[in-house]
Amino acid sequence: MKDQENLRLAYEQALKSYQEGGLPIGSVMVDAHGVVVGVGHNKRVQEHNPILHGEMDCMRNAGPRKNYKGFTLYTTLSPCMMCSGTIVQFGIKRVVVGEDENFKGNIDFLQQNGVEVVLLNDADCTALMKKFQQEKPELWLEDIGEGA
Amino acid sequence: MKDQENLRLAYEQALKSYQEGGLPIGSVMVDAHGVVVGVGHNKRVQEHNPILHGEMDCMRNAGPRKNYKGFTLYTTLSPCMMCSGTIVQFGIKRVVVGEDENFKGNIDFLQQNGVEVVLLNDADCTALMKKFQQEKPELWLEDIGEGA
Repeated sequence: MKDQENLRLAYEQALKSYQEGGLPIGSVMVDAHGVVVGVGHNKRVQEHNPILHGEMDCMRNAGPRKNYKGFTLYTTLSPCMMCSGTIVQFGIKRVVVGEDENFKGNIDFLQQNGVEVVLLNDADCTALMKKFQQEKPELWLEDIGEGA
Repeated sequence: MKDQENLRLAYEQALKSYQEGGLPIGSVMVDAHGVVVGVGHNKRVQEHNPILHGEMDCMRNAGPRKNYKGFTLYTTLSPCMMCSGTIVQFGIKRVVVGEDENFKGNIDFLQQNGVEVVLLNDADCTALMKKFQQEKPELWLEDIGEGA
């Protein structure tokens, strides 16, 4: 199934980030024709950049677009308010989420704003994020603006 | 008054971007001690990067922070949903806005999420943005995800 395949690409991005010492959250963007137009992962650590969550890095890598009609965004973890606001602002109408067990995110907000959200409850995404949160809890909290 | 001074710095960023051929929206971030910790402007054109609205570029330039307690964000134009989501996610509790005449933005959303918003109705911010929107309407629409 295409959603599973694309989420797998996002997971590979998350794993790459984890191996680099960064936050293991990955993302993939697909256009209306099903073509992958961007991939990315969290780069808070790698680029010392707080706004580069996985979804944002993916948006950057996909480059400027006139609009996002028919696009789907894949993310290994339920989107934070920054990324959810971005999805709504740019009119991305379909989001596939790996898991929301390690971070609830803003699925309700997305749905209330007309975004179709597919939650896959992916075991690999969940296990990797859980492991990271246990290993580097403070880095995780800083990434969502809740550092001590 | 300090808010006027800091908004002026944001306006200078907007003007710089306009002179570079980019979108004239600027931003400044000040910490709990009133120290400017970052400035920035929209770089959609300059870096071919759709997520670099003025506020986002400012956040990037301020670098990673443990949290944003006591910080104030200045922006020449009322924040879009991406930037508003970012403000809420990172716990920035005070935002000073130059104007909301050329773009309504999401002041209500910010207030509903506990953010103090100060709207200055600045004539220079308003005039520059109006001029830009008249000169490059399509670029403006693309910047908010509404291109043709």
